[in-house]
Amino acid sequence: MSPADNPCIIAVAITGSLPTKENNPAVPITVAEQVESTHEAFEAGASIAHCHVRDDAGKPTSDPERFARLKDGIERHCPGMIVQLSTGGRSGAGRERGGMLPLRPDMASLAVGSNNFPTRVYENPPDLVDWLASEMLAHDVKPEIEAFDLSHVVQATRMQADGRIKGPLYVQFVMGVKNAMPADERILDIYIETLRRLAPDALWCAAGIGANQLVLNEWAIARGGHTRT
Amino acid sequence: MSPADNPCIIAVAITGSLPTKENNPAVPITVAEQVESTHEAFEAGASIAHCHVRDDAGKPTSDPERFARLKDGIERHCPGMIVQLSTGGRSGAGRERGGMLPLRPDMASLAVGSNNFPTRVYENPPDLVDWLASEMLAHDVKPEIEAFDLSHVVQATRMQADGRIKGPLYVQFVMGVKNAMPADERILDIYIETLRRLAPDALWCAAGIGANQLVLNEWAIARGGHTRT
Ligand SMILES: [Zn+2]
Ligand SMILES: [Zn+2]
Ligand SMILES: [Zn+2]
Ligand SMILES: [Zn+2]
Repeated sequence: MSPADNPCIIAVAITGSLPTKENNPAVPITVAEQVESTHEAFEAGASIAHCHVRDDAGKPTSDPERFARLKDGIERHCPGMIVQLSTGGRSGAGRERGGMLPLRPDMASLAVGSNNFPTRVYENPPDLVDWLASEMLAHDVKPEIEAFDLSHVVQATRMQADGRIKGPLYVQFVMGVKNAMPADERILDIYIETLRRLAPDALWCAAGIGANQLVLNEWAIARGGHTRT
Repeated sequence: MSPADNPCIIAVAITGSLPTKENNPAVPITVAEQVESTHEAFEAGASIAHCHVRDDAGKPTSDPERFARLKDGIERHCPGMIVQLSTGGRSGAGRERGGMLPLRPDMASLAVGSNNFPTRVYENPPDLVDWLASEMLAHDVKPEIEAFDLSHVVQATRMQADGRIKGPLYVQFVMGVKNAMPADERILDIYIETLRRLAPDALWCAAGIGANQLVLNEWAIARGGHTRT
């Protein structure tokens, strides 16, 4: 496939769930700040907005009302941009994590396995994974699979095969998380090989955490993958 | 390396934490039954006994007193056999899982990451992993790393590099667990390649769960690895 047939999709993660204004005054925290920050990224070429929201104290939340306001703002300021809402575990517990899926965003993140994080277990129990996937099917939301380990890649392909996820898969390889998978170029190739072998029509992107962000951007783009800021 | 330089180590898992007499009347549950079953396996060529213990109701436990009786029995009936005690999460919670390490068995199992099991999360939080590893160092117990996913292989090599585990590593690749890694021959080769790349002096074995047991035995032996019944 030539680059012209496969333009690189840039997803912008405007806020994340961890950084605060104390870490970096430029981090957009309020919905208004997030919309304007996304608008700038959209004009610079980003086509997916990966969204987390915060409560009034700046803490991560899964509050559907906040997600609704952010989604509406992005849709108004950035026509045609793909809105992807996070169902990640830093923002809520259990089914709270999927409380915004009835908003029918274009996409939502979906973890399909569990793994260690720097100081704790990132818990995605099988019944919660299946429930989130079923909510995405019910509300016509395209999942972005967050793969923190090789078995997560395999699990996504099994979920597609038995109908729990509608294909083609869109899989993000997440690297550089302490106590999970480090940024390792050979293992990125293994991820790509395994995904191609088990789900030949899948698309993939890659994200490096913290200092690994640009490294993963370069590795992904060099391999014809998509990328995440 | 020729087979003569690298004899296959057979580990016998005599009881496990799940099967009951109702599943199979031949499962050894009492310490006396376990010792005799291990003795038979030892005479048939097994050199590591991978041990779980049960309470009086047949439920998995981490009770150090039961482990002590089993260890003593195996040492008396099977001189020279390597005793490996399970610190797996089905038998206890938190530090209970390592309560038998002061018995100074030759080996103990050590999970270094978390993953999904068929119906739940197999939780091995980073601080518990580090504590279990430090207890193994303190009591001169050789860990068998239980790798349920690729990042677990990498994590073991990092723990060796920074001194949390004494090398050379002994790593078991566990395949065929629903919602974790299936029995996949190409991924077994990836495990072996990754371990060799990051810890060239490591030894490895492989275990297939349930119906995958013989499949993994064959794959492992064909590759010069060690094996688990
Ligand atoms: Zn996110
Ligand atoms: Zn605007
Ligand atoms: Zn075991
Ligand atoms: Zn005997």
